[in-house]
Amino acid sequence: MKKCLTNLYYLGIILLCCVFTVQAQKAEITKVNPTNWFVGMKNPNLQILIYGKNLQSNKLSLKPHAGVKLKKVHTVENPNYLFVDLEIAKNTKAGNLQFSCNGTSFSYELKAKSAQPRGLSQADFIYLLMPDRFANGDYSNDKFADMADPNHDRKNPFFRHGGDLQGVTQHLDYLKELGVTAIWMTPVIENNQYLTDEGGAMRSAYHGYGFTEHYNVDKRLGGNEAYKKLSNEAHKKGIKLVQDAVYNHVGINHWFLKDMPSKDWLNQWDKYTNTTYKDQPLFDIHASAKDTKEVRNGWFTSFLPDLNQNNPFVANFLIQHALWSVETFDLDAWRIDTYIYNDLYFMNKCNQALLTEYPKIHIFGESAVNTVISQAYFTKNNLAIPFKSNLPGALDFVVEEAIFEALNHDFGWNDGVSRLYSVLAQDLAYADPSKNVNFLENHDHHRFFSVIGEDFEKYKMGIAWLMTLRGIPHFYYGTEILMKNFKNPSDAEVRRDFPGGWKEDEVNKFEKSGRNEKENEAFEFVKKLANFRKSSDAIANGKFMQFVPQDAVYVYFRHTEKQIIMVVSNTSKSEKNIDTSRFEEILKGSKSAKNIIDDVNIADISNLKIPAKGVMILEINQSKK
Amino acid sequence: MKKCLTNLYYLGIILLCCVFTVQAQKAEITKVNPTNWFVGMKNPNLQILIYGKNLQSNKLSLKPHAGVKLKKVHTVENPNYLFVDLEIAKNTKAGNLQFSCNGTSFSYELKAKSAQPRGLSQADFIYLLMPDRFANGDYSNDKFADMADPNHDRKNPFFRHGGDLQGVTQHLDYLKELGVTAIWMTPVIENNQYLTDEGGAMRSAYHGYGFTEHYNVDKRLGGNEAYKKLSNEAHKKGIKLVQDAVYNHVGINHWFLKDMPSKDWLNQWDKYTNTTYKDQPLFDIHASAKDTKEVRNGWFTSFLPDLNQNNPFVANFLIQHALWSVETFDLDAWRIDTYIYNDLYFMNKCNQALLTEYPKIHIFGESAVNTVISQAYFTKNNLAIPFKSNLPGALDFVVEEAIFEALNHDFGWNDGVSRLYSVLAQDLAYADPSKNVNFLENHDHHRFFSVIGEDFEKYKMGIAWLMTLRGIPHFYYGTEILMKNFKNPSDAEVRRDFPGGWKEDEVNKFEKSGRNEKENEAFEFVKKLANFRKSSDAIANGKFMQFVPQDAVYVYFRHTEKQIIMVVSNTSKSEKNIDTSRFEEILKGSKSAKNIIDDVNIADISNLKIPAKGVMILEINQSKK
Repeated sequence: MKKCLTNLYYLGIILLCCVFTVQAQKAEITKVNPTNWFVGMKNPNLQILIYGKNLQSNKLSLKPHAGVKLKKVHTVENPNYLFVDLEIAKNTKAGNLQFSCNGTSFSYELKAKSAQPRGLSQADFIYLLMPDRFANGDYSNDKFADMADPNHDRKNPFFRHGGDLQGVTQHLDYLKELGVTAIWMTPVIENNQYLTDEGGAMRSAYHGYGFTEHYNVDKRLGGNEAYKKLSNEAHKKGIKLVQDAVYNHVGINHWFLKDMPSKDWLNQWDKYTNTTYKDQPLFDIHASAKDTKEVRNGWFTSFLPDLNQNNPFVANFLIQHALWSVETFDLDAWRIDTYIYNDLYFMNKCNQALLTEYPKIHIFGESAVNTVISQAYFTKNNLAIPFKSNLPGALDFVVEEAIFEALNHDFGWNDGVSRLYSVLAQDLAYADPSKNVNFLENHDHHRFFSVIGEDFEKYKMGIAWLMTLRGIPHFYYGTEILMKNFKNPSDAEVRRDFPGGWKEDEVNKFEKSGRNEKENEAFEFVKKLANFRKSSDAIANGKFMQFVPQDAVYVYFRHTEKQIIMVVSNTSKSEKNIDTSRFEEILKGSKSAKNIIDDVNIADISNLKIPAKGVMILEINQSKK
Repeated sequence: MKKCLTNLYYLGIILLCCVFTVQAQKAEITKVNPTNWFVGMKNPNLQILIYGKNLQSNKLSLKPHAGVKLKKVHTVENPNYLFVDLEIAKNTKAGNLQFSCNGTSFSYELKAKSAQPRGLSQADFIYLLMPDRFANGDYSNDKFADMADPNHDRKNPFFRHGGDLQGVTQHLDYLKELGVTAIWMTPVIENNQYLTDEGGAMRSAYHGYGFTEHYNVDKRLGGNEAYKKLSNEAHKKGIKLVQDAVYNHVGINHWFLKDMPSKDWLNQWDKYTNTTYKDQPLFDIHASAKDTKEVRNGWFTSFLPDLNQNNPFVANFLIQHALWSVETFDLDAWRIDTYIYNDLYFMNKCNQALLTEYPKIHIFGESAVNTVISQAYFTKNNLAIPFKSNLPGALDFVVEEAIFEALNHDFGWNDGVSRLYSVLAQDLAYADPSKNVNFLENHDHHRFFSVIGEDFEKYKMGIAWLMTLRGIPHFYYGTEILMKNFKNPSDAEVRRDFPGGWKEDEVNKFEKSGRNEKENEAFEFVKKLANFRKSSDAIANGKFMQFVPQDAVYVYFRHTEKQIIMVVSNTSKSEKNIDTSRFEEILKGSKSAKNIIDDVNIADISNLKIPAKGVMILEINQSKK
């Protein structure tokens, strides 16, 4: 018995030594996220993620700092993480917090809140571009040997081409001339990984949707400093910046996946499960639980692991990164990738966090769906149903499809332009359809000019609609110079380099002299309308009124007290005469107009002659009452 | 001066004599509508229309009658009308009221309220027929020389063919055998008028949608007594009766149009204006006032004048006729013609009047539209918008179109059976989609069997869906014997006589021996499913659950605690094997099932083999828990 006790005594000593030894090892801190924070936020709470070694929750302390309270230190499954809850009182001053964790000190900066996002309105015109494919402003950052993907090859459509943020900054005057008021770039955040095709060949993650470090802009694009510079220069020229946000997933090389905080950091499956990409199970009152789970928690692709947004630490991480980005890069609006695959309750929380801090910010989401009910479900809507989305606007995929139908199919009861009319007639489902973002193409779709069979008359009609329909228009780089292609054999075909964006390019289509006659005609057409809409009261603030299409002719108005814009589109293959007495309730005796497209005055608008496939944008000279 | 006064004196005498002479003429009363009324109604108010000559509002009196109060006598533009407001207290006894008007007495019967409409539920199966084209039970009423249209000619597709209510009564056993639980007939009310085609040739108004006397069932169909008899006989066999109501318009020969109560009795236009038939201006937040007025107040056709339901006397006339009909003919449900062209506020009032008196009655409307949002707008819905329809159900035109898409087009992301799935996934827009009425054809559409290219496999699949989807199915006479045709050259092609409905017919397809093998196969298929659904708990009361279609296979369930029905449809052209583990959340370990279609037991449902274009309706043998 005594021997036994003696043995236990020695065992105790040994254990104590071990513990002492472990405790003696100082904490090594690898990551602190957010990398800094801000004072003056409406939400006083902050949760800091600390990643490293030898962390100990009970050994984390904060040096007293006026206004800042350390509320709780959370541990998770993985001891290499701590999550520290702080409360930052209203009038706390900017400065550095001093933390100490297990013998290691670190400071944490609280900057002054300063961002005042400008938001987006119907007066805006967004230009979407892929920074790798637009212009190369800095040849020194085209590739890095220390990155997972060290490739750079303009001849390979799947490799990085070297475009960067400096390239965008250098072409702000081009965008300004075109009439652009906001730039949206495919994500600029670090994607330190590569993909492989079916055959196992390496492909670059130049699309940007697989973040590997949230707090770094990819150094191949110029890093955080180049992004700040672009933001600053753009704002000086009156151009806003839209960030492409990805909450649903991260890149498979994301640093936190190599040593996950907890198993439930991701939506995990017994065997790999892809999302079905179907929107219906998310709102269908008849849906099966299995279908709903698969679409929401299935992975977008095998190299984009699906974050579990029901994990509160994940949720805080994502939300805080969004707020941090707005502050750090002075962003004006927020485009949310793969909106519908996110947890929609999380999305509401995240949107609300942004809207609480920045009431003017615009947020719109990608819901690639086919019906207005579906699109409205994922947006702030007029549906009296239990789940209520708070997303202000949607990328209007239903309008895009209807525009193609209108341009490419013959007029019928519900075909051709009747479809576009019918889709817009369903706007009652949205809380505010003017917050939707309309488009003709993007990096995932066929090029608009190809979809319409390279028909220049259709091109003009489509762009006239985009520029004058209710909602906020977005372009895709190159539409203005008739860039074309279908996504065959791959997406890369619709993501070609903007000619002239590289100094070695033989032609420079950023300049008039580099564009051929047709390209200049297209450029001037877009420029004309985009610049017109900038100062148009009816476009910025006006109501939309549409008339039932008759005989393939579609007529709608944008109007305020000050200005009436009448858009007349003849989608048929023959000339039409239009008796405008039908529109008397809005024309109110007005007799004449100017066609915005060609500056031609029309002295008598009582009868309008419009050629086959013709479009007119008339600014009405209002009769004095 | 004195002469002047003398002249005035004589003029006064003359005028007085004139007045006395007019007053001396007794009232001649031609019409009193409703022709009688009821005691025990929840709404105590009644407005009686009196039409005649020499009516005088101040000379109308009611002999004291316990519980009945004469509240007001209204005059209108036309002195030949009086509208008399009565209030009938709760416990008033049935009996005759005695009115006197300007020297003429008439009695007005108050009957006891007795109708208890049975309503409709998902357990029902409605059979729509055109009484003129179904069966001729009484050859003595085929034509009348004193009617505007004296024609009867079975060889002329546009003339009356002699079918009548007695013919329907005679075939109740046929309908009962088929599994029908409710009959809906195109309107039976008098249509004492004719139409003309473009060339001016006479056509019969056999379709029944132009009423000329609301209170008479057309005597060519057998009149009010034959309708009462049919109702009575049908109810004895457990078959309900649905009335086809037309509020929007009347026949151009309607008696009250020959001497209108007031100019605003109809929606009048400076020049003839047809409705545009477009639904969108009625709900489009961007609609023009002109478009909205045209669709609502434009006439359905030139021979169907559009009633002004904003005129309160018109509104009362229509609502009271509806209530009177339910009481008089013991009706169970109400189908409303051209729902969307009515004034929708009037429709709400009218529906509410029926629902107040008869809470169990079912009401469903014809809104021939293309989108769920539109169809939901006209129905009780989950749209948070200012106008709220109270119509319990819609004829589901969107589901009909989606069924055709599913049967006739290849499977795709949003094509083929994916469309049907997608339409049903939008059910969140309806307050209760199970109250919608599904169909494959009607008297205005191409025949179902022709639409599907006379493909018997598609026929079975379409009918299997109709019989098992959420909602109440309705058939069109002859679907069960493969009646076919497109509406070319005219609607008459889809309104052919039921073979055997006339004693001179060479074949009688009401009998097995008269049907060929394929027709009997069709008949038996329908009979099997229709009779199964009568006693199926899952069909009558069950939830609907649908799975995302995969590889052209669509699987859905109807289920309660007691019963699980699994419907498996292979819309592709090749055999499929289905691993049913995907449906475990509802199958819950069940191992076997019986196919309702062929009574074959399937011992192991873990994997189902289903032929190309095959459909299975499996009643699952639930595993004991």
